[in-house]
Amino acid sequence: MSEQKVKILDCTIRDGGLVNNWDFEVSFVRDLYESLNKAGVDYMEIGYKNSPKLLKAKDSGPWRFLDDEFIREVIPEKKATKLSALVDIGRVDEHDILPREESLIDLIRVACYIKDVKKGIELVKKFHGLGYETSINIMAVSNSLDHEINEALEEINNSPVDVVYIVDSFGSLDGKDIKALAEKFRSYLPEKELGIHTHNNMQLAFANTLVGIDHEVTFLDSSVYGMGRAAGNCPTELLVSHLKDVKYDVAPVIDVIERLFIPLRRKVEWGYIIPYMITGILNEHPRSAMALRSSDDPDQFMAFYDKMTSVEPNVE
Amino acid sequence: MSEQKVKILDCTIRDGGLVNNWDFEVSFVRDLYESLNKAGVDYMEIGYKNSPKLLKAKDSGPWRFLDDEFIREVIPEKKATKLSALVDIGRVDEHDILPREESLIDLIRVACYIKDVKKGIELVKKFHGLGYETSINIMAVSNSLDHEINEALEEINNSPVDVVYIVDSFGSLDGKDIKALAEKFRSYLPEKELGIHTHNNMQLAFANTLVGIDHEVTFLDSSVYGMGRAAGNCPTELLVSHLKDVKYDVAPVIDVIERLFIPLRRKVEWGYIIPYMITGILNEHPRSAMALRSSDDPDQFMAFYDKMTSVEPNVE
Repeated sequence: MSEQKVKILDCTIRDGGLVNNWDFEVSFVRDLYESLNKAGVDYMEIGYKNSPKLLKAKDSGPWRFLDDEFIREVIPEKKATKLSALVDIGRVDEHDILPREESLIDLIRVACYIKDVKKGIELVKKFHGLGYETSINIMAVSNSLDHEINEALEEINNSPVDVVYIVDSFGSLDGKDIKALAEKFRSYLPEKELGIHTHNNMQLAFANTLVGIDHEVTFLDSSVYGMGRAAGNCPTELLVSHLKDVKYDVAPVIDVIERLFIPLRRKVEWGYIIPYMITGILNEHPRSAMALRSSDDPDQFMAFYDKMTSVEPNVE
Repeated sequence: MSEQKVKILDCTIRDGGLVNNWDFEVSFVRDLYESLNKAGVDYMEIGYKNSPKLLKAKDSGPWRFLDDEFIREVIPEKKATKLSALVDIGRVDEHDILPREESLIDLIRVACYIKDVKKGIELVKKFHGLGYETSINIMAVSNSLDHEINEALEEINNSPVDVVYIVDSFGSLDGKDIKALAEKFRSYLPEKELGIHTHNNMQLAFANTLVGIDHEVTFLDSSVYGMGRAAGNCPTELLVSHLKDVKYDVAPVIDVIERLFIPLRRKVEWGYIIPYMITGILNEHPRSAMALRSSDDPDQFMAFYDKMTSVEPNVE
């Protein structure tokens, strides 16, 4: 598979918003868009397009409930970098979605667990009918049974979706796992584009993305300086510098890291931190580790490890 | 290649010493030895066995110029974890090396560039004659021409050395590079054990080590919490938790990180930091980035990138 066909999708604002409750200034997001465009990044995911009616979260920044008019204020001049938004099953109001020609958004991605794939496909059909590019991002594949994945992929293959994502939600997969999943996805989805979204709990986010490229995955998620929930994602700067396509230039990403992300990282935390490593090696959601890091004893690693690996009866 | 045959060599004190000028307390090193032994780690590299007569560095801690009597004070009770020491060409006085039965050291590793391989082999023969296990660690393979590597490997193959290491000195190699080098080393060295020593400039240290395992590499270097020069090494905790051998247990590594390495990391710096990423992607020695991080403007990433990539005449 030639690297020429791959696309980088930077999800800093969306996945990084899980770190700072989407508390990004408009000027920050605008600056990031300009920087990613200069770097040749293909897509920028500017947030979630969930409905504030369906998800109570008054304190969250506007990037959690994107409004099309607001996006036009943020990005007054659209450039080569396309825009995407993520929606969650049960949290998006489809009446909020304008026809594509009335929106700056190009791609709508549907995040869903295996059990919700039918609902995900229904949403995809609607967004596809409105003219959008679409993806289904299957979360937590590491916690799904093989036959469930197979059945879901068969249904997805009969839908109009453009891209199907392998999502390593817990950062628990290694290169062999990615290879096996990419081969499975390819065999069940011969005509679809494949995507990969990784987490860095075991310092494998970038490496696993490269394994994906070697196995016909073409949509590559990343975030600047790895900013994303818990251990974060595949760093955009590594992907941009590694891909040989002449359109990519790492300098604008280094520049925006220096100006915006080093100061931000001093205020909020993400990256390779031992409790996230522990949930990664245990194939667990990082929420317990995130709770530890927000507690008064964020460095009590051993007590956390003992709790997570205890086989004693749970008395909760 | 079965994972059963691999050995982990923790080089925290030796490579990490490059971060803090080998300023480790005896109690720290003793504690680390106990922890690594409990974790099932096969070797601990306790420092350099260079000669203070041949390398002026009065401020360095004792782990840079290991003395056999001193090692006995540090490790009063040797356990299953073996000890190793590294020597540099031209900096070791072979008269300092006792016969193995009089030393706690099991393995002496010789670090050398391709151009010094003949000197390296001479040292290996002496240490082998004294009864030690030996390795040759070929540094900076990413900056060596193919035919030079081939000729060096032919000579090494005719020596008594036990292990030959692929060393990614600049953290600039990816999984495909490691695969190609491991296959080359295997073809030129059919009877030798192979080793790998990685740096984390591109967050590939652990992933590249796993690629090595898949290609008959059995000696795996690592350091606790990745502590090593500049971007650091493959983290011991990831390797110990990933390998399926029942002898390995990650809990003692997590414990020692919490007690010793989190406080230490607050005082001295290593890991994935943008200037080290930049030297990694450019396949350069990290010394320029280390100088930047020691300067008054450690976060001037763009100026550093511009300088490192400038094609203007060098007026120095």
